Amino acid sequence: MKRQELIRLIKTKKSFLCIGLDPDLSKIPQHLLNDEDPIFSFNKQILDVTHDLVVAFKPNFAFYECYGVRGWNSLAKTIQYINKTYSGKAFTIADAKRGDIGNTSQQYARAMFDPSMSGMDFDAVTVAPYMGEDSVKPFLSHQGKWIILLALTSNKGAGDFQLLDTGDKKLFEEVLCKSSQWGSNENMMYVVGATKAEMLTKVREIIPDHFLLVPGVGAQGGSLAEVAKYGLTRECGLLVNSSRNILYASKEKDFAQKARAEALKMQKEMEVILEKAGITEQR
Amino acid sequence: MKRQELIRLIKTKKSFLCIGLDPDLSKIPQHLLNDEDPIFSFNKQILDVTHDLVVAFKPNFAFYECYGVRGWNSLAKTIQYINKTYSGKAFTIADAKRGDIGNTSQQYARAMFDPSMSGMDFDAVTVAPYMGEDSVKPFLSHQGKWIILLALTSNKGAGDFQLLDTGDKKLFEEVLCKSSQWGSNENMMYVVGATKAEMLTKVREIIPDHFLLVPGVGAQGGSLAEVAKYGLTRECGLLVNSSRNILYASKEKDFAQKARAEALKMQKEMEVILEKAGITEQR
Repeated sequence: MKRQELIRLIKTKKSFLCIGLDPDLSKIPQHLLNDEDPIFSFNKQILDVTHDLVVAFKPNFAFYECYGVRGWNSLAKTIQYINKTYSGKAFTIADAKRGDIGNTSQQYARAMFDPSMSGMDFDAVTVAPYMGEDSVKPFLSHQGKWIILLALTSNKGAGDFQLLDTGDKKLFEEVLCKSSQWGSNENMMYVVGATKAEMLTKVREIIPDHFLLVPGVGAQGGSLAEVAKYGLTRECGLLVNSSRNILYASKEKDFAQKARAEALKMQKEMEVILEKAGITEQR
Repeated sequence: MKRQELIRLIKTKKSFLCIGLDPDLSKIPQHLLNDEDPIFSFNKQILDVTHDLVVAFKPNFAFYECYGVRGWNSLAKTIQYINKTYSGKAFTIADAKRGDIGNTSQQYARAMFDPSMSGMDFDAVTVAPYMGEDSVKPFLSHQGKWIILLALTSNKGAGDFQLLDTGDKKLFEEVLCKSSQWGSNENMMYVVGATKAEMLTKVREIIPDHFLLVPGVGAQGGSLAEVAKYGLTRECGLLVNSSRNILYASKEKDFAQKARAEALKMQKEMEVILEKAGITEQR
Protein backbone atom coordinates (compact mmCIF):
# COMPACT_ATOMS: atom_id res chain seq x y z
CA MET A 1 0.00 0.00 0.00
CA LYS A 2 1.31 3.43 -0.96
CA ARG A 3 1.62 6.33 1.47
CA GLN A 4 -1.12 8.31 -0.26
CA GLU A 5 -3.49 5.32 -0.10
CA LEU A 6 -2.85 4.99 3.62
CA ILE A 7 -3.56 8.70 4.15
CA ARG A 8 -6.76 8.36 2.12
CA LEU A 9 -7.84 5.43 4.33
CA ILE A 10 -7.22 7.51 7.45
CA LYS A 11 -9.37 10.36 6.10
CA THR A 12 -12.15 8.07 4.89
CA LYS A 13 -12.35 6.02 8.06
CA LYS A 14 -11.62 9.04 10.31
CA SER A 15 -9.28 6.79 12.22
CA PHE A 16 -5.60 6.06 12.68
CA LEU A 17 -6.22 3.00 14.80
CA CYS A 18 -4.19 -0.18 14.42
CA ILE A 19 -5.37 -3.34 16.12
CA GLY A 20 -2.64 -5.67 17.33
CA LEU A 21 -3.70 -9.27 16.76
CA ASP A 22 -2.08 -10.97 19.78
CA PRO A 23 -4.29 -14.03 20.26
CA ASP A 24 -3.72 -15.97 23.47
CA LEU A 25 -5.60 -19.25 23.95
CA SER A 26 -5.76 -18.62 27.70
CA LYS A 27 -7.50 -15.28 27.17
CA ILE A 28 -9.85 -15.79 24.24
CA PRO A 29 -13.47 -16.80 24.90
CA GLN A 30 -13.43 -20.43 25.90
CA HIS A 31 -16.27 -21.47 23.58
CA LEU A 32 -13.91 -20.84 20.64
CA LEU A 33 -11.58 -23.58 21.83
CA ASN A 34 -13.91 -26.15 20.28
CA ASP A 35 -13.35 -24.69 16.82
CA GLU A 36 -10.92 -26.37 14.44
CA ASP A 37 -8.62 -23.33 14.53
CA PRO A 38 -9.56 -21.23 17.58
CA ILE A 39 -6.98 -18.54 16.85
CA PHE A 40 -8.20 -17.99 13.32
CA SER A 41 -11.84 -18.04 14.51
CA PHE A 42 -11.00 -15.39 17.09
CA ASN A 43 -9.07 -13.21 14.64
CA LYS A 44 -11.74 -13.49 11.96
CA GLN A 45 -14.45 -12.26 14.29
CA ILE A 46 -12.29 -9.38 15.54
CA LEU A 47 -11.45 -8.43 11.95
CA ASP A 48 -15.04 -8.61 10.73
CA VAL A 49 -16.39 -6.52 13.55
CA THR A 50 -13.71 -3.79 13.61
CA HIS A 51 -12.48 -3.40 10.00
CA ASP A 52 -14.49 -0.23 9.30
CA LEU A 53 -13.04 1.51 12.38
CA VAL A 54 -9.44 0.60 11.79
CA VAL A 55 -6.76 1.44 9.22
CA ALA A 56 -4.26 -1.25 10.15
CA PHE A 57 -4.03 -4.77 11.55
CA LYS A 58 -0.84 -5.98 13.19
CA PRO A 59 -0.42 -9.67 13.98
CA ASN A 60 2.26 -10.09 16.64
CA PHE A 61 4.26 -13.12 15.51
CA ALA A 62 5.20 -14.31 19.00
CA PHE A 63 1.57 -15.09 19.75
CA TYR A 64 1.48 -17.50 16.80
CA GLU A 65 4.98 -18.96 17.07
CA CYS A 66 4.37 -20.11 20.63
CA TYR A 67 1.94 -22.62 19.10
CA GLY A 68 4.55 -23.83 16.62
CA VAL A 69 3.51 -24.99 13.15
CA ARG A 70 -0.15 -24.80 14.09
CA GLY A 71 0.32 -21.17 15.11
CA TRP A 72 2.07 -20.28 11.86
CA ASN A 73 -0.80 -21.86 10.02
CA SER A 74 -3.29 -19.64 11.90
CA LEU A 75 -1.09 -16.64 11.10
CA ALA A 76 -0.96 -17.45 7.39
CA LYS A 77 -4.74 -17.94 7.29
CA THR A 78 -5.23 -14.61 9.06
CA ILE A 79 -3.17 -12.54 6.63
CA GLN A 80 -4.67 -14.41 3.65
CA TYR A 81 -8.17 -13.67 4.96
CA ILE A 82 -7.38 -9.96 5.40
CA ASN A 83 -5.90 -9.74 1.92
CA LYS A 84 -8.87 -11.51 0.37
CA THR A 85 -11.63 -9.75 2.30
CA TYR A 86 -10.27 -6.29 3.05
CA SER A 87 -7.86 -5.78 0.17
CA GLY A 88 -6.91 -2.09 -0.09
CA LYS A 89 -8.94 -1.31 3.00
CA ALA A 90 -6.44 -2.15 5.71
CA PHE A 91 -2.69 -1.70 6.05
CA THR A 92 -1.11 -4.91 7.35
CA ILE A 93 1.90 -5.08 9.64
CA ALA A 94 3.95 -8.18 10.38
CA ASP A 95 5.03 -7.40 13.94
CA ALA A 96 8.03 -9.66 13.94
CA LYS A 97 10.96 -7.45 15.07
CA ARG A 98 13.30 -9.18 12.63
CA GLY A 99 16.80 -8.16 11.53
CA ASP A 100 19.98 -10.12 10.72
CA ILE A 101 22.94 -10.06 8.32
CA GLY A 102 22.05 -9.22 4.72
CA ASN A 103 21.50 -12.68 3.24
CA THR A 104 19.33 -13.60 6.23
CA SER A 105 17.26 -10.41 6.28
CA GLN A 106 16.63 -11.11 2.60
CA GLN A 107 14.98 -14.40 3.57
CA TYR A 108 12.94 -12.73 6.32
CA ALA A 109 11.77 -10.17 3.75
CA ARG A 110 10.60 -13.01 1.52
CA ALA A 111 8.72 -14.54 4.44
CA MET A 112 6.76 -11.30 4.93
CA PHE A 113 6.48 -9.94 1.41
CA ASP A 114 6.63 -12.78 -1.12
CA PRO A 115 3.41 -14.83 -1.12
CA SER A 116 4.70 -17.04 -3.95
CA MET A 117 7.30 -18.38 -1.49
CA SER A 118 5.78 -18.02 1.95
CA GLY A 119 2.04 -17.67 1.35
CA MET A 120 2.15 -14.39 3.28
CA ASP A 121 1.87 -10.86 1.92
CA PHE A 122 2.08 -8.04 4.46
CA ASP A 123 2.42 -4.33 3.70
CA ALA A 124 5.02 -3.79 6.41
CA VAL A 125 7.33 -5.54 8.87
CA THR A 126 8.78 -4.31 12.15
CA VAL A 127 12.60 -4.46 12.19
CA ALA A 128 15.20 -4.09 14.96
CA PRO A 129 18.03 -1.65 14.14
CA TYR A 130 20.93 -3.05 16.19
CA MET A 131 22.70 -4.74 13.25
CA GLY A 132 22.70 -1.61 11.07
CA GLU A 133 22.18 -0.72 7.44
CA ASP A 134 22.82 -4.03 5.67
CA SER A 135 20.42 -5.77 8.04
CA VAL A 136 17.64 -3.30 7.13
CA LYS A 137 18.15 -2.65 3.42
CA PRO A 138 17.02 -6.08 2.11
CA PHE A 139 13.51 -5.33 3.38
CA LEU A 140 13.47 -2.08 1.38
CA SER A 141 14.17 -3.79 -1.93
CA HIS A 142 10.55 -5.00 -2.11
CA GLN A 143 8.55 -2.45 -4.13
CA GLY A 144 5.54 -1.01 -2.35
CA LYS A 145 6.50 -2.55 1.00
CA TRP A 146 7.45 -0.84 4.23
CA ILE A 147 9.69 -1.41 7.18
CA ILE A 148 8.83 -0.07 10.60
CA LEU A 149 12.09 0.34 12.49
CA LEU A 150 12.29 0.28 16.27
CA ALA A 151 13.36 3.70 17.51
CA LEU A 152 12.01 4.36 21.01
CA THR A 153 9.94 1.53 22.41
CA SER A 154 7.17 1.65 25.01
CA ASN A 155 8.71 -0.66 27.61
CA LYS A 156 10.81 0.07 30.69
CA GLY A 157 13.90 -1.50 29.10
CA ALA A 158 13.87 1.22 26.42
CA GLY A 159 15.96 3.17 28.92
CA ASP A 160 18.77 0.61 28.97
CA PHE A 161 20.25 1.43 25.56
CA GLN A 162 17.89 3.60 23.49
CA LEU A 163 18.35 6.61 25.79
CA LEU A 164 22.14 6.39 26.07
CA ASP A 165 24.02 9.50 24.99
CA THR A 166 26.08 8.90 21.86
CA GLY A 167 27.90 12.18 21.41
CA ASP A 168 25.32 14.95 20.92
CA LYS A 169 22.41 12.56 20.40
CA LYS A 170 20.70 9.77 22.25
CA LEU A 171 20.92 6.35 20.61
CA PHE A 172 17.31 6.41 19.36
CA GLU A 173 17.94 9.81 17.75
CA GLU A 174 21.06 8.43 16.09
CA VAL A 175 18.96 5.51 14.82
CA LEU A 176 16.42 7.97 13.38
CA CYS A 177 19.06 10.21 11.77
CA LYS A 178 21.10 7.48 10.21
CA SER A 179 18.36 5.09 9.14
CA SER A 180 16.15 7.79 7.61
CA GLN A 181 18.84 8.04 4.92
CA TRP A 182 18.38 4.36 3.98
CA GLY A 183 14.86 4.79 2.65
CA SER A 184 12.22 7.49 2.56
CA ASN A 185 8.91 8.39 4.14
CA GLU A 186 7.38 6.27 1.36
CA ASN A 187 8.84 3.01 2.66
CA MET A 188 9.94 3.58 6.25
CA MET A 189 8.05 4.18 9.47
CA TYR A 190 9.27 4.09 13.08
CA VAL A 191 8.07 2.57 16.34
CA VAL A 192 7.82 5.26 19.01
CA GLY A 193 6.11 4.29 22.25
CA ALA A 194 3.15 6.22 23.63
CA THR A 195 4.55 5.90 27.14
CA LYS A 196 7.17 8.47 26.11
CA ALA A 197 4.86 10.91 24.31
CA GLU A 198 6.83 14.04 25.16
CA MET A 199 9.83 12.53 23.37
CA LEU A 200 7.80 12.75 20.17
CA THR A 201 8.88 16.40 19.91
CA LYS A 202 12.48 15.26 19.51
CA VAL A 203 11.41 12.57 17.07
CA ARG A 204 9.49 15.08 14.93
CA GLU A 205 12.54 17.38 14.78
CA ILE A 206 14.44 14.59 13.06
CA ILE A 207 11.69 12.98 10.98
CA PRO A 208 8.90 15.54 10.53
CA ASP A 209 6.98 13.53 7.92
CA HIS A 210 7.47 9.82 8.55
CA PHE A 211 4.63 7.75 9.84
CA LEU A 212 5.04 6.48 13.39
CA LEU A 213 3.61 3.27 14.76
CA VAL A 214 2.75 4.03 18.35
CA PRO A 215 2.25 1.15 20.78
CA GLY A 216 1.57 1.52 24.47
CA VAL A 217 -1.78 3.33 24.43
CA GLY A 218 -4.14 1.51 26.77
CA ALA A 219 -2.79 -1.53 28.63
CA GLN A 220 0.70 -0.01 28.80
CA GLY A 221 -0.56 3.37 30.07
CA GLY A 222 0.05 5.84 27.20
CA SER A 223 -2.46 8.58 26.35
CA LEU A 224 -3.91 9.15 22.89
CA ALA A 225 -4.29 12.90 23.41
CA GLU A 226 -0.63 13.24 24.40
CA VAL A 227 0.51 11.22 21.40
CA ALA A 228 -1.54 13.37 19.03
CA LYS A 229 -0.37 16.59 20.69
CA TYR A 230 3.30 15.84 20.06
CA GLY A 231 3.22 13.47 17.11
CA LEU A 232 0.47 14.46 14.68
CA THR A 233 1.53 15.85 11.29
CA ARG A 234 -0.58 17.60 8.66
CA GLU A 235 -1.12 14.19 7.02
CA CYS A 236 -1.70 12.49 10.37
CA GLY A 237 1.59 10.56 10.38
CA LEU A 238 0.44 8.26 13.17
CA LEU A 239 -0.79 4.71 13.51
CA VAL A 240 -1.76 4.13 17.11
CA ASN A 241 -1.89 0.52 18.17
CA SER A 242 -4.13 -1.09 20.72
CA SER A 243 -4.16 -4.83 21.39
CA ARG A 244 -5.25 -6.19 24.76
CA ASN A 245 -7.80 -3.44 25.54
CA ILE A 246 -9.75 -4.32 22.41
CA LEU A 247 -9.13 -8.06 22.03
CA TYR A 248 -9.91 -8.93 25.62
CA ALA A 249 -12.65 -6.42 26.41
CA SER A 250 -14.77 -9.48 27.20
CA LYS A 251 -14.06 -13.18 27.55
CA GLU A 252 -17.73 -14.11 26.96
CA LYS A 253 -19.79 -14.80 23.84
CA ASP A 254 -20.19 -11.03 23.38
CA PHE A 255 -16.42 -10.56 22.98
CA ALA A 256 -16.72 -9.30 19.39
CA GLN A 257 -19.33 -6.65 20.25
CA LYS A 258 -17.29 -5.54 23.26
CA ALA A 259 -14.17 -5.38 21.12
CA ARG A 260 -16.04 -3.24 18.60
CA ALA A 261 -17.25 -0.94 21.37
CA GLU A 262 -13.65 -0.42 22.55
CA ALA A 263 -12.42 0.19 19.01
CA LEU A 264 -15.31 2.58 18.37
CA LYS A 265 -14.42 4.57 21.48
CA MET A 266 -10.87 5.03 20.19
CA GLN A 267 -12.03 5.79 16.65
CA LYS A 268 -14.36 8.51 17.96
CA GLU A 269 -11.49 10.12 19.90
CA MET A 270 -9.38 9.95 16.76
CA GLU A 271 -12.14 11.49 14.65
CA VAL A 272 -12.20 14.53 16.94
CA ILE A 273 -8.41 14.83 16.80
CA LEU A 274 -8.37 14.59 12.99
CA GLU A 275 -11.18 17.12 12.55
CA LYS A 276 -9.57 19.62 14.89
CA ALA A 277 -6.38 19.31 12.86
CA GLY A 278 -8.25 19.68 9.57
CA ILE A 279 -7.21 16.25 8.39
CA THR A 280 -10.44 15.37 6.61
CA GLU A 281 -11.68 14.25 3.22
CA GLN A 282 -11.94 16.90 0.54
CA ARG A 283 -15.60 17.31 -0.37
CA MET B 1 22.09 -28.39 28.45
CA LYS B 2 24.25 -27.21 31.34
CA ARG B 3 27.52 -25.34 30.92
CA GLN B 4 29.57 -28.24 32.27
CA GLU B 5 27.90 -30.66 29.84
CA LEU B 6 28.73 -28.35 26.94
CA ILE B 7 32.36 -28.13 28.07
CA ARG B 8 32.48 -31.92 28.36
CA LEU B 9 31.14 -32.24 24.80
CA ILE B 10 33.84 -29.87 23.55
CA LYS B 11 36.56 -31.93 25.22
CA THR B 12 35.14 -35.27 24.07
CA LYS B 13 34.59 -34.25 20.49
CA LYS B 14 37.74 -32.06 20.42
CA SER B 15 35.68 -29.45 18.66
CA PHE B 16 33.90 -26.18 19.26
CA LEU B 17 32.25 -26.16 15.87
CA CYS B 18 28.66 -25.08 15.36
CA ILE B 19 26.97 -25.76 12.04
CA GLY B 20 24.44 -23.19 10.93
CA LEU B 21 21.50 -24.93 9.26
CA ASP B 22 20.54 -22.33 6.62
CA PRO B 23 18.86 -24.47 3.95
CA ASP B 24 18.14 -22.73 0.66
CA LEU B 25 16.17 -24.63 -1.99
CA SER B 26 18.11 -22.86 -4.73
CA LYS B 27 21.44 -24.09 -3.32
CA ILE B 28 20.77 -27.61 -2.07
CA PRO B 29 21.42 -30.57 -4.39
CA GLN B 30 18.64 -30.62 -6.93
CA HIS B 31 17.92 -34.36 -6.62
CA LEU B 32 16.56 -33.64 -3.12
CA LEU B 33 13.80 -31.47 -4.56
CA ASN B 34 11.86 -34.64 -5.41
CA ASP B 35 11.67 -35.60 -1.73
CA GLU B 36 8.50 -34.90 0.21
CA ASP B 37 10.33 -32.41 2.46
CA PRO B 38 13.57 -31.42 0.71
CA ILE B 39 14.71 -29.14 3.52
CA PHE B 40 14.35 -31.79 6.17
CA SER B 41 16.03 -34.38 3.88
CA PHE B 42 18.94 -32.00 3.40
CA ASN B 43 19.24 -31.18 7.10
CA LYS B 44 18.99 -34.82 8.15
CA GLN B 45 21.85 -35.84 5.90
CA ILE B 46 24.01 -32.92 7.07
CA LEU B 47 23.24 -33.79 10.72
CA ASP B 48 23.92 -37.50 10.30
CA VAL B 49 27.23 -36.99 8.57
CA THR B 50 28.64 -34.22 10.82
CA HIS B 51 27.24 -34.85 14.33
CA ASP B 52 30.42 -36.43 15.69
CA LEU B 53 32.52 -33.43 14.60
CA VAL B 54 30.23 -30.76 15.93
CA VAL B 55 29.09 -29.57 19.37
CA ALA B 56 26.20 -27.37 18.22
CA PHE B 57 23.61 -27.03 15.48
CA LYS B 58 22.02 -23.68 14.74
CA PRO B 59 18.97 -23.50 12.47
CA ASN B 60 18.60 -19.97 11.12
CA PHE B 61 14.87 -19.26 11.27
CA ALA B 62 14.78 -16.94 8.25
CA PHE B 63 15.66 -19.83 5.97
CA TYR B 64 12.56 -21.70 7.12
CA GLU B 65 10.15 -18.79 7.46
CA CYS B 66 10.66 -17.76 3.84
CA TYR B 67 8.82 -21.00 2.97
CA GLY B 68 5.94 -20.14 5.30
CA VAL B 69 4.07 -22.88 7.14
CA ARG B 70 5.88 -25.56 5.14
CA GLY B 71 9.20 -24.08 6.28
CA TRP B 72 8.17 -24.01 9.93
CA ASN B 73 7.18 -27.63 9.58
CA SER B 74 10.67 -28.52 8.27
CA LEU B 75 12.16 -26.54 11.16
CA ALA B 76 10.08 -28.36 13.77
CA LYS B 77 10.98 -31.73 12.24
CA THR B 78 14.66 -30.78 12.28
CA ILE B 79 14.82 -29.86 15.96
CA GLN B 80 12.69 -32.89 16.88
CA TYR B 81 15.04 -35.15 14.93
CA ILE B 82 18.11 -33.68 16.65
CA ASN B 83 16.52 -34.07 20.08
CA LYS B 84 15.50 -37.65 19.37
CA THR B 85 18.69 -38.82 17.70
CA TYR B 86 21.45 -36.76 19.27
CA SER B 87 20.00 -35.97 22.68
CA GLY B 88 22.73 -34.73 25.02
CA LYS B 89 25.23 -34.87 22.18
CA ALA B 90 24.60 -31.52 20.53
CA PHE B 91 23.77 -28.06 21.83
CA THR B 92 20.92 -26.58 19.81
CA ILE B 93 20.53 -22.89 18.99
CA ALA B 94 17.39 -21.24 17.63
CA ASP B 95 18.96 -18.48 15.57
CA ALA B 96 15.92 -16.24 15.55
CA LYS B 97 17.20 -12.82 16.79
CA ARG B 98 13.98 -12.26 18.75
CA GLY B 99 13.22 -9.62 21.38
CA ASP B 100 10.11 -7.58 22.22
CA ILE B 101 8.24 -6.19 25.24
CA GLY B 102 7.97 -8.57 28.19
CA ASN B 103 4.66 -10.29 27.49
CA THR B 104 5.73 -10.85 23.87
CA SER B 105 9.24 -12.12 24.63
CA GLN B 106 7.54 -14.54 27.00
CA GLN B 107 5.64 -16.00 24.03
CA TYR B 108 8.79 -16.17 21.93
CA ALA B 109 10.48 -18.03 24.78
CA ARG B 110 7.65 -20.56 24.77
CA ALA B 111 8.07 -21.00 21.02
CA MET B 112 11.72 -21.94 21.49
CA PHE B 113 11.73 -23.69 24.85
CA ASP B 114 8.32 -25.23 25.55
CA PRO B 115 7.70 -28.31 23.40
CA SER B 116 4.32 -28.91 25.04
CA MET B 117 3.13 -25.69 23.37
CA SER B 118 5.21 -25.27 20.24
CA GLY B 119 6.64 -28.73 19.54
CA MET B 120 10.13 -27.20 19.65
CA ASP B 121 12.77 -27.54 22.32
CA PHE B 122 16.03 -25.69 21.74
CA ASP B 123 18.84 -25.20 24.27
CA ALA B 124 19.35 -21.57 23.31
CA VAL B 125 17.92 -18.68 21.34
CA THR B 126 19.64 -15.63 19.85
CA VAL B 127 18.16 -12.35 21.11
CA ALA B 128 18.56 -8.71 20.02
CA PRO B 129 19.35 -6.29 22.88
CA TYR B 130 17.83 -3.01 21.61
CA MET B 131 14.69 -3.16 23.79
CA GLY B 132 16.61 -3.75 27.04
CA GLU B 133 16.24 -5.81 30.17
CA ASP B 134 12.52 -6.63 30.21
CA SER B 135 12.74 -7.83 26.60
CA VAL B 136 15.53 -10.26 27.52
CA LYS B 137 14.57 -11.53 30.98
CA PRO B 138 11.54 -13.67 29.97
CA PHE B 139 13.90 -15.96 28.05
CA LEU B 140 15.98 -16.46 31.20
CA SER B 141 13.08 -17.73 33.26
CA HIS B 142 13.27 -21.12 31.52
CA GLN B 143 15.43 -23.43 33.64
CA GLY B 144 18.41 -24.94 31.84
CA LYS B 145 17.94 -22.73 28.76
CA TRP B 146 20.24 -20.07 27.35
CA ILE B 147 20.02 -16.81 25.52
CA ILE B 148 22.71 -15.67 23.15
CA LEU B 149 22.59 -11.90 23.02
CA LEU B 150 23.83 -9.90 20.04
CA ALA B 151 26.86 -7.87 21.09
CA LEU B 152 29.16 -7.23 18.14
CA THR B 153 27.96 -8.77 14.91
CA SER B 154 29.98 -9.88 11.89
CA ASN B 155 28.38 -7.65 9.25
CA LYS B 156 29.37 -4.24 7.92
CA GLY B 157 26.35 -2.59 9.54
CA ALA B 158 27.74 -3.49 12.97
CA GLY B 159 29.56 -0.18 12.69
CA ASP B 160 26.37 1.87 12.42
CA PHE B 161 25.31 1.63 16.06
CA GLN B 162 27.29 -1.07 17.92
CA LEU B 163 30.55 0.89 17.72
CA LEU B 164 29.11 4.27 18.74
CA ASP B 165 30.72 5.85 21.79
CA THR B 166 28.34 6.00 24.73
CA GLY B 167 30.36 7.85 27.35
CA ASP B 168 33.47 5.82 28.14
CA LYS B 169 32.29 2.70 26.35
CA LYS B 170 31.15 1.67 22.91
CA LEU B 171 27.54 0.56 22.65
CA PHE B 172 28.42 -3.14 22.36
CA GLU B 173 30.55 -2.85 25.52
CA GLU B 174 27.65 -1.18 27.31
CA VAL B 175 25.43 -4.07 26.14
CA LEU B 176 27.94 -6.56 27.56
CA CYS B 177 28.33 -4.72 30.89
CA LYS B 178 24.67 -4.14 31.56
CA SER B 179 23.22 -7.39 30.25
CA SER B 180 25.76 -9.62 31.98
CA GLN B 181 24.07 -8.56 35.22
CA TRP B 182 20.73 -9.98 34.02
CA GLY B 183 21.88 -13.58 34.02
CA SER B 184 25.11 -15.49 34.46
CA ASN B 185 27.63 -17.45 32.43
CA GLU B 186 25.36 -20.43 33.07
CA ASN B 187 22.49 -19.04 30.98
CA MET B 188 23.90 -16.27 28.79
CA MET B 189 26.24 -16.24 25.81
CA TYR B 190 27.03 -13.47 23.34
CA VAL B 191 27.33 -13.15 19.58
CA VAL B 192 30.70 -11.67 18.65
CA GLY B 193 31.65 -11.71 14.98
CA ALA B 194 34.87 -13.29 13.76
CA THR B 195 35.36 -10.44 11.31
CA LYS B 196 36.26 -8.28 14.32
CA ALA B 197 38.53 -10.77 16.10
CA GLU B 198 40.85 -8.18 17.65
CA MET B 199 37.82 -6.70 19.43
CA LEU B 200 37.58 -9.97 21.35
CA THR B 201 40.24 -8.60 23.72
CA LYS B 202 37.82 -5.87 24.80
CA VAL B 203 35.01 -8.39 25.05
CA ARG B 204 37.08 -10.69 27.27
CA GLU B 205 37.92 -7.79 29.62
CA ILE B 206 34.20 -7.41 30.33
CA ILE B 207 33.05 -11.04 30.20
CA PRO B 208 36.09 -13.26 30.81
CA ASP B 209 34.12 -16.49 31.21
CA HIS B 210 30.96 -16.32 29.08
CA PHE B 211 30.68 -18.48 26.02
CA LEU B 212 30.71 -16.59 22.73
CA LEU B 213 28.94 -17.66 19.57
CA VAL B 214 31.21 -16.54 16.76
CA PRO B 215 29.79 -16.25 13.26
CA GLY B 216 31.67 -15.00 10.24
CA VAL B 217 34.43 -17.62 9.95
CA GLY B 218 34.53 -18.81 6.35
CA ALA B 219 32.12 -17.20 3.87
CA GLN B 220 32.26 -13.88 5.71
CA GLY B 221 36.05 -13.85 5.90
CA GLY B 222 36.92 -14.33 9.59
CA SER B 223 39.88 -16.46 10.71
CA LEU B 224 39.64 -19.30 13.23
CA ALA B 225 43.21 -18.80 14.48
CA GLU B 226 42.54 -15.12 15.19
CA VAL B 227 39.32 -15.90 17.02
CA ALA B 228 41.04 -18.47 19.21
CA LYS B 229 44.01 -16.17 19.86
CA TYR B 230 41.82 -13.43 21.33
CA GLY B 231 38.72 -15.27 22.50
CA LEU B 232 39.69 -18.68 23.94
CA THR B 233 39.29 -19.20 27.68
CA ARG B 234 40.59 -22.02 29.88
CA GLU B 235 37.26 -23.81 29.33
CA CYS B 236 37.21 -22.94 25.63
CA GLY B 237 34.38 -20.41 25.87
CA LEU B 238 33.83 -20.40 22.11
CA LEU B 239 31.31 -21.83 19.68
CA VAL B 240 32.47 -21.03 16.17
CA ASN B 241 29.79 -21.17 13.54
CA SER B 242 30.12 -22.11 9.91
CA SER B 243 27.16 -22.39 7.56
CA ARG B 244 27.58 -21.91 3.83
CA ASN B 245 31.14 -23.31 3.62
CA ILE B 246 29.95 -26.64 4.98
CA LEU B 247 26.36 -26.87 3.69
CA TYR B 248 27.19 -25.94 0.14
CA ALA B 249 30.62 -27.54 -0.28
CA SER B 250 29.02 -29.45 -3.15
CA LYS B 251 25.70 -29.25 -4.96
CA GLU B 252 26.00 -32.84 -6.26
CA LYS B 253 25.03 -36.23 -4.85
CA ASP B 254 28.25 -36.20 -2.81
CA PHE B 255 27.17 -33.09 -0.90
CA ALA B 256 27.06 -34.86 2.47
CA GLN B 257 30.56 -36.30 2.11
CA LYS B 258 31.90 -32.91 0.98
CA ALA B 259 30.15 -31.22 3.90
CA ARG B 260 31.75 -33.71 6.28
CA ALA B 261 35.16 -33.08 4.73
CA GLU B 262 34.77 -29.31 5.34
CA ALA B 263 33.56 -29.87 8.91
CA LEU B 264 36.42 -32.31 9.53
CA LYS B 265 38.94 -29.75 8.34
CA MET B 266 37.60 -27.23 10.87
CA GLN B 267 37.40 -29.83 13.63
CA LYS B 268 41.04 -30.78 13.07
CA GLU B 269 42.11 -27.14 13.34
CA MET B 270 40.07 -26.85 16.53
CA GLU B 271 41.62 -30.03 17.96
CA VAL B 272 45.09 -28.51 17.58
CA ILE B 273 43.95 -25.25 19.21
CA LEU B 274 42.34 -27.09 22.14
CA GLU B 275 45.37 -29.34 22.69
CA LYS B 276 47.80 -26.43 22.62
CA ALA B 277 45.66 -24.71 25.25
CA GLY B 278 45.46 -27.86 27.39
CA ILE B 279 41.69 -28.07 27.04
CA THR B 280 41.44 -31.84 26.86
CA GLU B 281 39.71 -34.73 28.57
CA GLN B 282 41.13 -35.83 31.91
CA ARG B 283 42.53 -39.31 31.48
